[in-house]
Amino acid sequence: MKLTTALYLVPVNISDAPFIDVLPEGNLSILKGLHHIIVENVRTARRFLKRCDPGFDIGAVTFYELNRHTDPMEVSGYLEPLRRGEPMGVMSEAGCPAVADPGALPVSIAQREGLKVIPLVGPSSILMALMASGFNGQGFSFNGYLPIEPKEREHKVRELEALSRKTSMTQIFIETPYRNNRMVESLAHTLKGDTLLCVACDITDPEKESIKTLPASKWKNMKYDYDKRPAIFLLYAGK
Amino acid sequence: MKLTTALYLVPVNISDAPFIDVLPEGNLSILKGLHHIIVENVRTARRFLKRCDPGFDIGAVTFYELNRHTDPMEVSGYLEPLRRGEPMGVMSEAGCPAVADPGALPVSIAQREGLKVIPLVGPSSILMALMASGFNGQGFSFNGYLPIEPKEREHKVRELEALSRKTSMTQIFIETPYRNNRMVESLAHTLKGDTLLCVACDITDPEKESIKTLPASKWKNMKYDYDKRPAIFLLYAGK
Repeated sequence: MKLTTALYLVPVNISDAPFIDVLPEGNLSILKGLHHIIVENVRTARRFLKRCDPGFDIGAVTFYELNRHTDPMEVSGYLEPLRRGEPMGVMSEAGCPAVADPGALPVSIAQREGLKVIPLVGPSSILMALMASGFNGQGFSFNGYLPIEPKEREHKVRELEALSRKTSMTQIFIETPYRNNRMVESLAHTLKGDTLLCVACDITDPEKESIKTLPASKWKNMKYDYDKRPAIFLLYAGK
Repeated sequence: MKLTTALYLVPVNISDAPFIDVLPEGNLSILKGLHHIIVENVRTARRFLKRCDPGFDIGAVTFYELNRHTDPMEVSGYLEPLRRGEPMGVMSEAGCPAVADPGALPVSIAQREGLKVIPLVGPSSILMALMASGFNGQGFSFNGYLPIEPKEREHKVRELEALSRKTSMTQIFIETPYRNNRMVESLAHTLKGDTLLCVACDITDPEKESIKTLPASKWKNMKYDYDKRPAIFLLYAGK
């Protein structure tokens, strides 16, 4: 890949899989040409780059931190090198930047100013969970986090189930990892027995990956332990 | 990656990009171990495998064709090798199998029977368009094709726009490539002037890729030619 003046969206591994199994080799040559990278956390970004290539010249990279502590007004300033003609990068903590993370903000600024944006290929737990669920991939929604309060959550789950039944769209959502087991339990009891629930966990992990689709009625009597593991939930109630 | 008894979901390139730039090297070692692959079209599947590796032993692979001519009742039989303990693959014509293609059917059968399903990393135009649009990636819907009939299409576009305004979700859809220009024109006139429209075209193509976000009012006076090019459309009317 030839490096050009653009905002590169650089995916990061989502498990302990060897990089060779989850990231195209071409991404590394792009990364090596970036001296300005917007990241969620500088420490983990450095570690990722070192794991990509132990010889990576991290000293040559200026990092710009973008997370919930960042003043959104500051983010536009981050893009100065790009405006001057230098390629820049955006990296997430895990997976594809600008999907379910703060990375969309610099991208939207770049788009507004007509600056070029180039997404690179990498692992996305949302997409890979959808592929492996067996559910409808011709129509689907990612809903982020559901409400925490039990009554509100039940209401939302029933709403997504009804929507899936009506539109045949797959409904995808996530939970804070330490509440995953409670989420499965709550789904198993809230959903109608024949609604399909897929729990996709530790995606791309060579040892721990588990992607399982079963009717809600079967999840009730299943043994599982998803707590503190990265998981995605998908439900399907269509034809 | 160690080959195991599973249904591997193997992504395929979506442009003329060198494979090294869009597919992890590990995918090839998996592919080389698969002697049974479900494909949409045998001829293009062979071509892909040969491009992956000119020395690929295609003679050792049995292909199972799955497309709109396939009797769905036959698909379960395709999985016999997997039931016997042999790894199998599913490949799409382009991009990630089981997302916006018929591949979801064998996956759902495998899931029903408790057979292992392993998704591999590769390019997805839906996800990459979303990343590069600058739109909300914390909530989004992929809607497949919109209705062809102009009145119905306008109605659907307005519905998606209203939904995006209300929920702040990004709305994604596609069109048959030879109607892309008409789609942009229709969107530019149907959407409110300040609703953002992103057209993502030839994703991952090193020469032709173009991912542009502008308010609908600006698309009205733009020059573009997206016809016969693979494109994705995204709209955003949220805060």
